[in-house]
Amino acid sequence: MALLLKSDIDRHGAWEQALRARDPALEVRTWPEVGDPAGIEAALVWAPPEGVLAGLPNLKLIVSIGAGIDHFKSDPKLPEVPVVRMVEPGLTAGMTEFVVMSVLHHHRFMLDYASQQRAGQWQEIGQVAAAYRRIGFLGLGVLAQDAINKLRAFRFPLAGWSRSPKTLPGVACFHGRDQLPGFLARSDILVCLLPLTPDTEGILDAAAFAALPRGAALINVARGGHQNEDDLLAALDSGQLSGATLDVFQTEPLPADSPLWRHPRVILTPHIASMTIPESAADFVVETIHRMRDGQPLRHVIDWQRGY
Amino acid sequence: MALLLKSDIDRHGAWEQALRARDPALEVRTWPEVGDPAGIEAALVWAPPEGVLAGLPNLKLIVSIGAGIDHFKSDPKLPEVPVVRMVEPGLTAGMTEFVVMSVLHHHRFMLDYASQQRAGQWQEIGQVAAAYRRIGFLGLGVLAQDAINKLRAFRFPLAGWSRSPKTLPGVACFHGRDQLPGFLARSDILVCLLPLTPDTEGILDAAAFAALPRGAALINVARGGHQNEDDLLAALDSGQLSGATLDVFQTEPLPADSPLWRHPRVILTPHIASMTIPESAADFVVETIHRMRDGQPLRHVIDWQRGY
Repeated sequence: MALLLKSDIDRHGAWEQALRARDPALEVRTWPEVGDPAGIEAALVWAPPEGVLAGLPNLKLIVSIGAGIDHFKSDPKLPEVPVVRMVEPGLTAGMTEFVVMSVLHHHRFMLDYASQQRAGQWQEIGQVAAAYRRIGFLGLGVLAQDAINKLRAFRFPLAGWSRSPKTLPGVACFHGRDQLPGFLARSDILVCLLPLTPDTEGILDAAAFAALPRGAALINVARGGHQNEDDLLAALDSGQLSGATLDVFQTEPLPADSPLWRHPRVILTPHIASMTIPESAADFVVETIHRMRDGQPLRHVIDWQRGY
Repeated sequence: MALLLKSDIDRHGAWEQALRARDPALEVRTWPEVGDPAGIEAALVWAPPEGVLAGLPNLKLIVSIGAGIDHFKSDPKLPEVPVVRMVEPGLTAGMTEFVVMSVLHHHRFMLDYASQQRAGQWQEIGQVAAAYRRIGFLGLGVLAQDAINKLRAFRFPLAGWSRSPKTLPGVACFHGRDQLPGFLARSDILVCLLPLTPDTEGILDAAAFAALPRGAALINVARGGHQNEDDLLAALDSGQLSGATLDVFQTEPLPADSPLWRHPRVILTPHIASMTIPESAADFVVETIHRMRDGQPLRHVIDWQRGY
């Protein structure tokens, strides 16, 4: 059986190696080297080019390289076969690495030290003990819980906000719109890990920033739709926010004329906080292909109506 | 009883508040507002100016604000009273925060993303799973062990090197000069937490960098005397090292003409990885003062011959 591989970045070699290590019989063809289209029964893709998948007459399965589904907008002619979203431990692990790193970065005044380095200035900044740095999570799902478990060891006071009530050991839990201002008022570093829904769209706006303690920091690793970037820039420029780590943006890629690119209080990454890693994802991909081959029920098939 | 306080940075307010919360009877005087010198029986100092302490006729105790003793070189006329070095949980906690942050920073290619941000470039970089990123600790003392315990949760393969044999669960332990090249060869990110001794001085030199895997990263949070900065710059410029996080330097403050200030592959901080934090250190300071007052034996008195 042949698999067509079309990754977003140059990881084709890593994917081939990881997949073949688990199923030497699997023939991996890397787009655009399709070969005989009739031989391809499965595709592993990110942002498939329009019509490529529809041109494979025996295609039975599409596996998404990411957890989200937005990238399929690139192909309005997607064939009607099951599309499986990526479920792999590396996605959670990567998000936790990025969140813990970013929380520590703001906690340790690294934006200030970077600007001192640029200015050639040697100056200590009095450190705040972790016990006095309050971290707040918008969203308390699987990703937030994993990051919280790692941050607990540093003794930060932890809180979280979710739409419906939740209980997590050692975490002050808030819920609903009524409790949002109280939650924000005790968040020195705010981490957004919410799903993007009509309820949460634009939740990071001027009112939210004003409700934070003065000088708070924002980490948004959820979706750009959560943030109002004009409000964010105003809050950074007024000093209400001391800094922001942004992995997501209202428009991606971030337009070249966005002032965020050059803002001295912004750390900006191109939506990479959580990435599928071939080495940890290959088990899931091979298992899914074998289920298809053996006629077993597939797991994590995308429901396009529901949106995931 | 009065305490004379002379801090290195503007933390006098935080010290006064933290000390008075634990002993409201303690009178805290902030240098240079000494008042009646005869009333001062204890001093809490960093880099005391020459002769200030010798001018206090009833001084019975000096508490150092740091764990190191180098900063007393500022006062060659130190009176002959017991000098106690700082032992407080914040010093370990702060070092671990800084090490974990810096390891994740290199692991997640943040130097590359920072240079892409400066260039206005939106480009994902394929991530390496933590299980494939080998971390190596030079030095396996209390500080390294605490950082190792936090990093374990991220599933990095961990190794350590020490002068004499040590055993730590889940850590590949190397020891002695003979095993140093083998240890370095498996360290994608090298963290230096060694004590500075004649044995370890200059250990981070061209030979050590050449023994690392190509593209390794260095984190030095020990002492500047461990590193040869000319060799370090050459290794960064050749690409043998992909980056360095340096908190310590051969000369501190780092001279204005050092190329390290402006090097795009260097994160530079002014010896702040581990700092005494008034909120977590006040217990130790007040306990030490009470022991002196009550005639109990003092703990952690500096032995100037031994050097700590």
